[in-house]
Amino acid sequence: MKFGFADRMENVKPSAIREITKLTQKPGVISFAGGYPAPELFPIEEMKQICSKVLDESGKEALQYTTTEGFLPLRKHIVERMRRFGVEISEDQVLLTNGSQQGLDFTGKLFLNDHDVIICESPTYVGAISAFRPYRPRFAEVAMDEGGMRMDALEQVLQENPGAKFIYTIPDFQNPTGITLEPERRKMLMALSARYQVPVIEDNPYAELGLEGERLPAVKSYDAEGAVIYLGSFSKIFCPGLRIGWIAAAPEITRKYVMLKQAADLQVNTMAQRELAAFVYTYDIESHIARIRDVYRARRDLMLKAIESEFPDTINFTNPGGGLFIWVELPEGADAANVFQKAIENDVAFVPGAAFYPNGGHENTFRLNYSNMSEEKIIEGIKRLGQVLKAL
Amino acid sequence: MKFGFADRMENVKPSAIREITKLTQKPGVISFAGGYPAPELFPIEEMKQICSKVLDESGKEALQYTTTEGFLPLRKHIVERMRRFGVEISEDQVLLTNGSQQGLDFTGKLFLNDHDVIICESPTYVGAISAFRPYRPRFAEVAMDEGGMRMDALEQVLQENPGAKFIYTIPDFQNPTGITLEPERRKMLMALSARYQVPVIEDNPYAELGLEGERLPAVKSYDAEGAVIYLGSFSKIFCPGLRIGWIAAAPEITRKYVMLKQAADLQVNTMAQRELAAFVYTYDIESHIARIRDVYRARRDLMLKAIESEFPDTINFTNPGGGLFIWVELPEGADAANVFQKAIENDVAFVPGAAFYPNGGHENTFRLNYSNMSEEKIIEGIKRLGQVLKAL
Repeated sequence: MKFGFADRMENVKPSAIREITKLTQKPGVISFAGGYPAPELFPIEEMKQICSKVLDESGKEALQYTTTEGFLPLRKHIVERMRRFGVEISEDQVLLTNGSQQGLDFTGKLFLNDHDVIICESPTYVGAISAFRPYRPRFAEVAMDEGGMRMDALEQVLQENPGAKFIYTIPDFQNPTGITLEPERRKMLMALSARYQVPVIEDNPYAELGLEGERLPAVKSYDAEGAVIYLGSFSKIFCPGLRIGWIAAAPEITRKYVMLKQAADLQVNTMAQRELAAFVYTYDIESHIARIRDVYRARRDLMLKAIESEFPDTINFTNPGGGLFIWVELPEGADAANVFQKAIENDVAFVPGAAFYPNGGHENTFRLNYSNMSEEKIIEGIKRLGQVLKAL
Repeated sequence: MKFGFADRMENVKPSAIREITKLTQKPGVISFAGGYPAPELFPIEEMKQICSKVLDESGKEALQYTTTEGFLPLRKHIVERMRRFGVEISEDQVLLTNGSQQGLDFTGKLFLNDHDVIICESPTYVGAISAFRPYRPRFAEVAMDEGGMRMDALEQVLQENPGAKFIYTIPDFQNPTGITLEPERRKMLMALSARYQVPVIEDNPYAELGLEGERLPAVKSYDAEGAVIYLGSFSKIFCPGLRIGWIAAAPEITRKYVMLKQAADLQVNTMAQRELAAFVYTYDIESHIARIRDVYRARRDLMLKAIESEFPDTINFTNPGGGLFIWVELPEGADAANVFQKAIENDVAFVPGAAFYPNGGHENTFRLNYSNMSEEKIIEGIKRLGQVLKAL
């Protein structure tokens, strides 16, 4: 049988990270490649209590179909959560999704015709590139510095790309760099969005994983005219296995996402919605998140210290204020893919950075994850990686 | 903010069924509108045991990310299940999806350019129409009779539509008609698929809900050259709230679906995958399904009997061999939407049939569901509906 695929399939390629992940499953490999949360922090005992409670109190409802928008008590909780970031919305502006990843797919579906322009940080989340690519966009990358997306560079890209469909940003502890968009730039971003009439997609799964001081107001908190579509997630503050994220947008925009969700897969797992709602109303999710932050802070500090002592001085790296990742830049001309080959021979892994640049280049970069490995493994893994880097 | 949506959004409309469902939530309404399974049959006690077991034995894994393809023991079980329908596949041909609905969305994404032709039964599943529409296809409908899609009509449509992307069929106890494709026509369908080189999408969520005699071989069991993409579901034989379905196709086709799944939402809920696997390996799902069949058989028989005694003689209806639905045809010129208005005033509901015809027309039809209402309500609801029909 000769299948006639859609043209968009030319843009759909196997994920680079996926291939790497396979290699990291070799026994003995210390992997800083994935973006997995620390499973030892999952609230397993609480989940057992909750599953019984949900099934006892509402088993028939929990196993049945439900509305596309999602379980109302959970959406009300999301409204409360977002208030802490300075965002005032109502529950009819919230749609539950299968993690924030599905929000990215729907965003592509909602906005993108072939060859439309997406403006994004350089580098940006590889999963967003994968989600958008089937809709055949062009990517206009905006340079970053230690304060996040550079606003002068953004304005230039906006001028060069009239009709760009949206600005995609991960403002807090960005994947892959760990960099955070400065508060002042958040206001400027919204001013530019209004001036050029280009909406903003705020993808913010790491918002609550700040490891220093106060949380910043969301970009959406500066949104006077409904221009920001916010994608949130419980994957990093609760667990990723339940696949629960959300979209929060202007009411008429949320309604469009609801139609896409209904056509695509009807709804999020009903029981998972009720489990998560039971968790947030029964237990103290804030102290749960505080515990995650404590563990990640120790791991980040340890990894940074190990990098400083083990890596050659010619190598630059970010100092993330939170999230899961440290970003490493080798000297110009070096190729992280070669480093990866040597590293995996020495049983340590990371993700080469080129995959995070939709238009290619930057082969001298790579991403390290510190959330998913024990302190012992962080020390040992960075030591191995340092040896590989020194040998090159 | 002026948003610039994708052209495909012109094809995305609020679901007719969704609007109807809202009306049916009025207290006192007996609704034959939805396609919900009977919640009193959900294995709630078993699920409690299973949730504890999964969390005790593999809590860290169950709450973590997993592979896109899905939990291997569950895929192995699916391979075994499909063997009973005469389908021989291996587990690397199986991808877990969020219900079979997601398989429909991915099928549109995989195959459809704007204006491509889909060949489908007339009428067909309204959720498939919704899933495909964002990919902007044209629908070529094939007339049905009591033996399912008519093969002479199919051949004519194939001749008239060279380059059609696929033939979409629900062969067993079709939604909405309850009609089953005769075994002989399954062979002819595959012969036509081969002759015209058009693949077949076999959407088969009701396969195991036959209420008489033996189960039929799947269309895919006649598939010699990997031309059939099979969409399966646990929603009707276990529960829909967990959102677990699957795609089974030729290995290279499954790999493409895996890439789409990864880009769209990474994976199905990990815990739900492990719960379902624990259920099928711990309990006897076959006797669970037998119990569902017994209940549905009694409800179907009762509804058919009530229709015969309560509906005017000018009205035709199908006699489904299984599944969840009976299809009703009013005399030519009647409008089921008007009947619906009168019916809802009398606290009884159904789905007007026009929504099941992608190219419109057939306003004189409607769909009745018998799986989700008690025997008392079936008797009372059909009586109310009979009164409405007689008054018109």
